[in-house]
Amino acid sequence: MPVRRLVIDVLIPHNLSILHLAEKMAEIEGVDGANVHVLEVDERTKTVEVTIEGGSLSFDAIKEVTEELGGSVHSVDMVSAGSKLIEHEAAEQEV
Amino acid sequence: MPVRRLVIDVLIPHNLSILHLAEKMAEIEGVDGANVHVLEVDERTKTVEVTIEGGSLSFDAIKEVTEELGGSVHSVDMVSAGSKLIEHEAAEQEV
Amino acid sequence: MPVRRLVIDVLIPHNLSILHLAEKMAEIEGVDGANVHVLEVDERTKTVEVTIEGGSLSFDAIKEVTEELGGSVHSVDMVSAGSKLIEHEAAEQEV
Amino acid sequence: MPVRRLVIDVLIPHNLSILHLAEKMAEIEGVDGANVHVLEVDERTKTVEVTIEGGSLSFDAIKEVTEELGGSVHSVDMVSAGSKLIEHEAAEQEV
Amino acid sequence: MPVRRLVIDVLIPHNLSILHLAEKMAEIEGVDGANVHVLEVDERTKTVEVTIEGGSLSFDAIKEVTEELGGSVHSVDMVSAGSKLIEHEAAEQEV
Amino acid sequence: MPVRRLVIDVLIPHNLSILHLAEKMAEIEGVDGANVHVLEVDERTKTVEVTIEGGSLSFDAIKEVTEELGGSVHSVDMVSAGSKLIEHEAAEQEV
Amino acid sequence: MPVRRLVIDVLIPHNLSILHLAEKMAEIEGVDGANVHVLEVDERTKTVEVTIEGGSLSFDAIKEVTEELGGSVHSVDMVSAGSKLIEHEAAEQEV
Repeated sequence: MPVRRLVIDVLIPHNLSILHLAEKMAEIEGVDGANVHVLEVDERTKTVEVTIEGGSLSFDAIKEVTEELGGSVHSVDMVSAGSKLIEHEAAEQEV
Repeated sequence: MPVRRLVIDVLIPHNLSILHLAEKMAEIEGVDGANVHVLEVDERTKTVEVTIEGGSLSFDAIKEVTEELGGSVHSVDMVSAGSKLIEHEAAEQEV
Repeated sequence: MPVRRLVIDVLIPHNLSILHLAEKMAEIEGVDGANVHVLEVDERTKTVEVTIEGGSLSFDAIKEVTEELGGSVHSVDMVSAGSKLIEHEAAEQEV
Repeated sequence: MPVRRLVIDVLIPHNLSILHLAEKMAEIEGVDGANVHVLEVDERTKTVEVTIEGGSLSFDAIKEVTEELGGSVHSVDMVSAGSKLIEHEAAEQEV
Repeated sequence: MPVRRLVIDVLIPHNLSILHLAEKMAEIEGVDGANVHVLEVDERTKTVEVTIEGGSLSFDAIKEVTEELGGSVHSVDMVSAGSKLIEHEAAEQEV
Repeated sequence: MPVRRLVIDVLIPHNLSILHLAEKMAEIEGVDGANVHVLEVDERTKTVEVTIEGGSLSFDAIKEVTEELGGSVHSVDMVSAGSKLIEHEAAEQEV
Repeated sequence: MPVRRLVIDVLIPHNLSILHLAEKMAEIEGVDGANVHVLEVDERTKTVEVTIEGGSLSFDAIKEVTEELGGSVHSVDMVSAGSKLIEHEAAEQEV
């Protein structure tokens, strides 16, 4: 079943514009939209959270584009797959 | 009556991609969608919360797929069953 | 007037699956759906919060099913009755 | 103009079921639905918050039913009246 | 332009029922609905927050009714006027 | 492009009614509605937050009306302009 | 793929009106609306958060307008691109 939403943490060089990153992410086949959000700015790098939605996402293509731009995928935090887009239930908080 | 939503805590090996886990979960018969969310990352394992929705879920099939991938179901945190999908009411918080 | 929603705290034996509990609850006559949420896990027992909705709920039937499975209803935390399903208003918090 | 929603604090004997209370409240003329929520459990009594909605509510009838069941209305916390059901605005919090 | 919503703090005698206050407020010409919410209970008085909505509200009439019932308007906390009912924006919190 | 929403902090004399202020604001040309919310009450003055929406707002007219009533615009906290009314995104909170 | 939403931090001279800034932002080609929100006021400067939405945004044009008005873009905090406007998922908070 296709992957429909991905939330990933990406480390990018300080001089890479997140505008460019978002545009490139949105150009990947199967991607409907991408949101890039800056989480932390360090001297040489920025940590950004990227949310991507689409009909069928290829993580390999997303990873490739990230690396072509000089970034690296730090972690994959959330994945939704299937014919229906499921929101995650925060059952953990109360247990 | 069919189980319609499951929220489970799963322990997976560090090298298992949650992309792969989400895709495999979404392929199970009766599953409409799966969301995998990373809760904790340890040296050798990851703890993830998996939310699965569908017309009729088989926990055995979900457990089997988890174990085939080298993971184990740590706990079942929430279950919804019936013709109507019921949200849980947080009555506990105020008592 | 019929009871339309119930939120109860149930103590169940550690080895009783909440999947089984939710399925059995949803099979009771007059029940449209049931949600079982784990609140606390002790050595021999689990405390779960059960939310049940339906056109006309019988607490006796719900209690019977709970006890047949080895559990016991610890408390009834919230009840909605009538032709219209009323949400409770949290007036208490601000007084 | 008719009273459309009432939120009251009610003290009831420990052995009175809130199921019974909710059903009786919902049977009163002019009541569309009632929600009973347990706020505090003491040795001999329970304090519950009752939310009642309807086309035209009679507080006297609600008080009478409460007392017939051995309870007493502790306080009236919120009242909405008129042709339109108004939600209260929490202006207080920010002043 | 007409006043469409008012939130006022009112001091009322301890023995005045907020049911009566809400009903009387809702009977004023131009009022569609009134919500009375108890904020504080003192020995001789109660402080209540009254939210009133309507096509065209007369503060003088509202004040008069309040005083006829033995209460007094302590403060006017929020007013919305105009052809469109505007919600207030909490810009303050982040500045 | 027209200004569509304004949130301003206004200092007004203690004896100026916010009812009068809201009515006058709502009468200005191009204004659809005004909300006045009391933030702070001092001995001689009140600080209020005014939210104004309309098809095309003139800040000069708003300032003029404020000053005619004896108040002064303390600060302009938020402005939305354009054919589409944009809500502000709270990106700041997480960075 | 076009950039659809931008959230930027802008440093502007103390005497520049955010009304003027919002109007100028909203006049840029491809912009549907702009929201300017004051975050911090210092002696000589103001820090504002600007949210801009449109069918296709040009960051260069936005930067140019900012600088013509004497301001400077301090940081780009969030970017959404693609045919679908994606909201960012706050996966970070729980990890």
